[in-house]
Formats: sequence, C-alpha cells, structure tokens
Amino acid sequence: MDRRSLIKTAGMAGILSLGVAPAVHAQPAIRWRLASSFPQTLEGIYGAAEVFAQKVNAMTGGKFTISVHSGGQLVPAFGVVDAVEQGTVEMAHTAGYYFFGKDECFAIGCTVPFGLNSRQMTAWMYEGNGLKLMQEFHAQYNIVSFPGGNTGAQMGGWYRKEINTVDDLKGLKMRIGGFAGRVLERMGGVPQNIPGGEVYLALDKGTLDAAEWVGPYDDEKLGFQKVAPYYYYPGWWEGGPQLEFYINDKAFASLPAEYQEIVKAAASHAHVTMQALYDARNPLALRKLVAGGAQLRGFSGEVLQEALKHSHDIHAELSDTNPGWKKIYEDYANFRKDQNLWFRFAEMSFDRFMQSQTW
Amino acid sequence: MDRRSLIKTAGMAGILSLGVAPAVHAQPAIRWRLASSFPQTLEGIYGAAEVFAQKVNAMTGGKFTISVHSGGQLVPAFGVVDAVEQGTVEMAHTAGYYFFGKDECFAIGCTVPFGLNSRQMTAWMYEGNGLKLMQEFHAQYNIVSFPGGNTGAQMGGWYRKEINTVDDLKGLKMRIGGFAGRVLERMGGVPQNIPGGEVYLALDKGTLDAAEWVGPYDDEKLGFQKVAPYYYYPGWWEGGPQLEFYINDKAFASLPAEYQEIVKAAASHAHVTMQALYDARNPLALRKLVAGGAQLRGFSGEVLQEALKHSHDIHAELSDTNPGWKKIYEDYANFRKDQNLWFRFAEMSFDRFMQSQTW
Repeated sequence: MDRRSLIKTAGMAGILSLGVAPAVHAQPAIRWRLASSFPQTLEGIYGAAEVFAQKVNAMTGGKFTISVHSGGQLVPAFGVVDAVEQGTVEMAHTAGYYFFGKDECFAIGCTVPFGLNSRQMTAWMYEGNGLKLMQEFHAQYNIVSFPGGNTGAQMGGWYRKEINTVDDLKGLKMRIGGFAGRVLERMGGVPQNIPGGEVYLALDKGTLDAAEWVGPYDDEKLGFQKVAPYYYYPGWWEGGPQLEFYINDKAFASLPAEYQEIVKAAASHAHVTMQALYDARNPLALRKLVAGGAQLRGFSGEVLQEALKHSHDIHAELSDTNPGWKKIYEDYANFRKDQNLWFRFAEMSFDRFMQSQTW
Repeated sequence: MDRRSLIKTAGMAGILSLGVAPAVHAQPAIRWRLASSFPQTLEGIYGAAEVFAQKVNAMTGGKFTISVHSGGQLVPAFGVVDAVEQGTVEMAHTAGYYFFGKDECFAIGCTVPFGLNSRQMTAWMYEGNGLKLMQEFHAQYNIVSFPGGNTGAQMGGWYRKEINTVDDLKGLKMRIGGFAGRVLERMGGVPQNIPGGEVYLALDKGTLDAAEWVGPYDDEKLGFQKVAPYYYYPGWWEGGPQLEFYINDKAFASLPAEYQEIVKAAASHAHVTMQALYDARNPLALRKLVAGGAQLRGFSGEVLQEALKHSHDIHAELSDTNPGWKKIYEDYANFRKDQNLWFRFAEMSFDRFMQSQTW
C-alpha cells in the first residue's frame, strides 16, 4: 500500500484516534470582509474594528481572518447596512444612528439625544434588555449585532461665538446630523450636512457657524480652535454613543459554535478597549487644545433644558408613528430613569469630590 | 496491515493531509481549577469567574474547562495568591487589596482610597501603563494577571448613628479592612475584623457601630438597614475596585497561543459584564433598601477631606518604604490627575444634567 492510499484510508480514523473532534478542526480557513463606516484617521473608532479582527485571528490561530476596510473602500460609508443585509460583505462596524432615516430604531443601538451614558448603555446591552431588543430589530435586516465600542460623552462642538441663551442658536448654521440636527432645527438652528474635509474652511469663512465632531482626541487633529474657538460641553446628543458590529445572519449561522463565541468575546474586548483608549487619550488632547486657544464653555441650563424638551417631543412623536421605536425606546427610557436615580449617589458623589481636588 | 497499525503509521500524516494544523488540535483536553476568594452569595463578583470559565469552555468547544471553586473550598479565601504562586491551583479570581499585608502593591491592581473610578481604572489597565506595571509586579509571585470585573463606586457602609463631622468617627467601631481601616484609624475610628456572618448581630447589639459591604445589590440581601439604618455614600476607599484573574505563569505559558488569547478575551468579557450586572441591578436594590428603612446620607466634605489627607499621608509613607509602590503608584496617581481633569467636562456635565431630571 503506497503512502497516498494509506492516508486516504486512515485519515479520518487517525484524527479520531488522537481525540481531535473533527467538527471545528476540519473547518476550512474562513475569510470575512468587514466594512467600517469610518476613515482610518478616526483611529480610536476605526481601530476598534482592527482590534476585533486581530483578536479573532489570534484566538483561531489565523484560521478565521477578517479584513477591515475603511468607509467607502468596499461600499459607501452609509451603505454598510444594505451591504450586510445583502451579504455583499459578511460584517460591518458602524454607528447605528447613521441609519435613523431608514428606521429610527437603529439609533437606539448607538445613542439618542439625552440618552444613556457609556456605562449605562453597556449595562442596558449586556444586563438589561438592550441586546435582545436590538437583535430582534436588526433581524429584519438579516443582521446579528453586538456592541463594538463607545467614545464616552462627546463634546458639544466648536462655535465661532458664545452660546449663552437659546436665542444664540437662532439661525446658527451648524454641521450636525441625524437626530441632533432635528432637535437643533426646533431650537431655531440650521443643521448643515457638508463633507468633513470642508468644515475648516467653511468655519474660517463664516459660511458655517459651528460644527460638532467627537471629543478632544479626535478634534485635536483638526485645528478647529483656530477658526471657531468656543469648545462647548457636553454633547447632549451623544452622552454615550455606542458602535456596533453588524454581521450577516447567514454568515454568522454558518460559523462553528466555537467561532460564534470567539466573535462575541472579541467584540466584548473591542468594546472595552475602545472606551479605554478614548478615556486614556482625551486628557492630553484637551490640554493641547486649550494651549492652542480653545475656550472651554459649558452649555447653560437653559440651552440644555430647551434641547431636552424638544428631544422628548420628538421621542414621543416617534412612539406614535413607529411601533418598533415605541417598544424599544420605552424599555430604554425606563432603564435610563433607574440608572440616573442610582448613579447620583455613590458614583456622582465620588466623582465630584475627586474632580474638585487640585492634587 | 491491521487497522490499528495502519492508524499508528498514518495518523499524523492523515491530519496534515486534511489541512489541520496540529499545534492546537492535537492538544489534549485541558482542565484547570480556579479558586475564587468569594462566596457564591456574592453573585455578581463570584459570578464573574463563572462567566469567564463558561466563555473559555464555549470558545474551545469544551476542550478547555475551568472549574470554579468558592472561597475556602480548595484553599482559604485569602490563600489564593500562595496557591497560584505554588501551582496548587492554576488560577484565582480575587481582589488584590486583600494582599495589602503581603505587599501594598497588590492593592493598586484593585483600588486604593480615593483611587480611580471604574472607567478610569479600566483605561489605566488597558490603555495606560496599568496592566504592564501590575503584571511586572505579579511576576514576582509567578502570576500572570488580567482585569476581572469591577463593582463601580461602592457605598460607604451602614451606621447606627449619623456621621456629620470627623468627631463622629472618634471611637467608632467599624467593620472595615486593609487600607481603608488604616485611614479610619488615623481619623480616630477603630477598625474591626469580624466574620461576615456575625456582622448583623454585632450591629444589633451595638458591639459594632458600623460596617461596610459592597453596594445596594449585595447589601440588600443582608438587612443591615434594620439595625444600622444610615447608609452613607460614597465608599471613598472603593471608588472603582477591580477584581483580577491571577494565573500561574507556568500554566499560562503551557497553553497554546490560541488558548492564551481566548483566556484574555474571556477575561475582558467577564470584566465588562460584571460592571454591567452591578449597574443594571443596583437601582432596584436601592429602591428596596429605602422602602425597607435605609436612610441615605452623603459623607460631608469635612469627612471626605480629612480622609483624603490621611490617605495621601499613607500613600506618601509607602513611597518611602516600598520602591515597588513608589513606581506603580506614581504612574497611577498621574493618570488619576489627568482623568479627573478631563472627566469634569463632558462626562460630569452630562451626568449632572441627566441626574437632575425628574423624568
């Protein structure tokens, strides 16, 4: 019997005799493509998808590789839901609120104005009903979803002049999108949608009065403080925006059970490390911004309260027109109420005391 | 050639012919034991080790199983460092500050009085120098360590009488351990070390004036509000206590690279879900406690400031006597300073506004 036929006959038995379960291990190499909605310059956000892919690769000894593609490389940045739904790519990494126009429910998996903060959002997803409700919703789009990072509370953007009252927002041309844009509109502002690369010049010329971006770490690279020096906080429309991994349901179902679990744990790892990255890097960036001329300003209670009122109105209107929204948002809003009841005691009093120190 | 000798000859070649890399897959089943320092009744804390073990199991298709044992079952609750060091068990799940008496540096991997909050601690570990410094320190004990959950800011315990001034702490017999006990002592209090099961009776009899535990979710099960109704916040000695997985270094090194990565990702998953569990469950527990007679009280600025002063003194004294402490604590303290500079803007202003609403 020559060597080849010997192997042919004995191959499978040989594997079994060594106690190796064939189910996973005979699995051919798996190659997926991940479409990010973000440019590589948004290092923390884009990077969370890279962290995820590297973890999956390392946990499978290179047998399950996922190539990460920046926004527009394979499909348009805002076309990733369609691409995952149709199976053009196996998965995406994105911010659900980009798909607010398709169905407002997408936004709840990311954030809504005056929503949950980062820790509260994570709690809603993993230990509240969040993941269950969002997965039920996403299933309509052939999507299985998992949390994929958070930036923490963002800043409220860059302004050419100070915003002291609601009147100061009247006619304000601001680069701001989606849900937040609708709220700004009801306050008299004029939301603008212009490409990121044109914002600096528009602010400099005064064809734009304000623009929101992310927070110190990402904003510091753009130099907006030179043309719109008032840097407001908080970004009330992004108190804890969460990114998500969207996976085509058939692609996910085709994975061996072990690999499904590996995908979930890699997502958890990317989730925790992205928030850590922003938290670790924002302080130095903030110092650089202030040294470079940024003027830190807090939104007044009047402005916040008015924005909250309009946000509540919009949320209530959506509950009348979108039954899916009503179902998910009610659970989210109840959770938020409970969270803010509890967080005001131990967490808030500890943080306030620590922040009041000069060290 | 009979079937047995055919397999013997062809087994390995057969595996290779199917494209299965032998390194991991020929790995015999791995069974580890994990010694927790906690009782099963501390469901969130003990449970994080269960979550970890289940994830490892699921990601390896049951080929790497870790049995979880509660405090005292295999080794004493506070004997887990010795047990991991000597290889009696492969790993442990514990709170580093229990080993403050062995070397004060252990505490920094958990928390110190007026330390980092939960998110900040995670940022220091994953994106600052925390994990690197703690792993360097733990290596002396043959330990490889990873973050393993956080409770968030704890409550400041149960008191039979109100604590308004530092004078009210004089002679106060309080069940409180380690570092916090040393600080209380300098403020005139008398730290007590009595078994958990005897606390209720001691508070009822008045042989104990106060006791600290965790936070609403765990405290609610104990009924302390009936005998010591004043429930203070924040637990300034536990602003963001982190648990850790301690793994025997030889056991860790013996794992295939894929399994090492699986262990790390499972730890990240347990880390994020434990905090989520506490955040999700504390609100309802707090409501129950208040309905059951708990009186919520915030520590006064005077009390907190005095506790901070003594904590600073102790930290500085340790820097003189323990070079390891000096090295790790300096990095930790610088990180804390930066974190509290940044967190006061977007995060704090968002949280304060949200918490001020009645919804």
